[in-house]
Amino acid sequence: MPVLPISRNKKAIVLLSGGLDSATVLYLARQEGFFCHCLSFAYGQRHRKELEYAQRLAREAHAPWEEVSFTLPWKGSALLEATASLPKHRSFQEMSHGIPPTYVPARNTLFLSFAASWAEAAEASFILIGANALDYSGYPDCRPEFFSSFNQMIGKGTKAGEKAIEVIAPLVHKTKAEIIQLGVTLRVPYELTWSCYEGGEFPCGSCDSCLLRAKGFREAGFEDPLCKLGSRHG
Amino acid sequence: MPVLPISRNKKAIVLLSGGLDSATVLYLARQEGFFCHCLSFAYGQRHRKELEYAQRLAREAHAPWEEVSFTLPWKGSALLEATASLPKHRSFQEMSHGIPPTYVPARNTLFLSFAASWAEAAEASFILIGANALDYSGYPDCRPEFFSSFNQMIGKGTKAGEKAIEVIAPLVHKTKAEIIQLGVTLRVPYELTWSCYEGGEFPCGSCDSCLLRAKGFREAGFEDPLCKLGSRHG
Repeated sequence: MPVLPISRNKKAIVLLSGGLDSATVLYLARQEGFFCHCLSFAYGQRHRKELEYAQRLAREAHAPWEEVSFTLPWKGSALLEATASLPKHRSFQEMSHGIPPTYVPARNTLFLSFAASWAEAAEASFILIGANALDYSGYPDCRPEFFSSFNQMIGKGTKAGEKAIEVIAPLVHKTKAEIIQLGVTLRVPYELTWSCYEGGEFPCGSCDSCLLRAKGFREAGFEDPLCKLGSRHG
Repeated sequence: MPVLPISRNKKAIVLLSGGLDSATVLYLARQEGFFCHCLSFAYGQRHRKELEYAQRLAREAHAPWEEVSFTLPWKGSALLEATASLPKHRSFQEMSHGIPPTYVPARNTLFLSFAASWAEAAEASFILIGANALDYSGYPDCRPEFFSSFNQMIGKGTKAGEKAIEVIAPLVHKTKAEIIQLGVTLRVPYELTWSCYEGGEFPCGSCDSCLLRAKGFREAGFEDPLCKLGSRHG
């Protein structure tokens, strides 16, 4: 069973964060015959490293890539405050409760709204997002009911009209390990993905994002090629 | 009958374009006891003049003001192309048919998404927008069904949760003349508003926006104080 609806000669805007989920979506969509346009955001996050990874990945996949820049003057997230401390060394049980301080107010709403604007201008029918609700249940804007509500809204608020543009989150019910297993069969170059909230030379290994990535590779039974690079250089 | 729900000590994000509709909303909200935060956008429009007007108006109303900047690399609107010709000298019948080339893909979705982000960060309950569906029926993202759908969506996609943030478009069923009549009773300083799509020294007088403004003042039975300034300086 294909995870995405089979659709040839279809255009899709792929939200590409530089992390492993969106990279997997890009390779999945290509395999399913989508013509992908990649979109990344400089929104005041702590570093540009994930954007460099996103750009390299799009180039590797021969997909057009655009970066949109904005800042949120009201901040409202530890990710947007250079001096705020990020949660480190949390247990997976701790991560599974509540909304973390790395939540950015209305971030996916903003990302999807930019994608909808591009989809309308480029006459693309699909917006693909790598959100998954299992490992990050704390983020309200990663849940299936949010995407379905967004689809309703964008049908009312665009010239393209109802059902012309559809957000699909093909990984939404998958665990990180399942995503990685899928990605390995798709030959996703995971060494070109960056998950760490910090922008150091190597992943910090202790933020929520690093811990979930490591757990995912461990449970999937694969070695993280990014860490292999790190240990070779380190 | 108040147009807005009476509500004291309520915070609201007011989308302030620099034009007369959003100026009227700001003064209406102040009268209704809202504590207003004004938000304007530099999104690649042809000139910054409307932003300067928005900032002056917010200062005049003693309301905090923020500007968010972004560009849409895919453009998709005559407003975003410096060399595209804008419709001029159109009849009101021509304006009432179809979606004009000045439509910007998903613009109000983007504006409201930024406002929702600020509302969530500042714990504001309301977002106020000066959209009206009568004179500009061509814009899909000015219709009441769009705002109601946006409210559903933002309830799903924010930490604040359902019904915590509500978009209100208090002018949505009013004609331009009715808006101006309301604004005059509220003492809105319309000389501090800019409607023209061009950023010349004086309003061009022939774009859709200038023509609708002139018709509004004529039908409301008032002189446009901006034109009076123009003729005094001209």
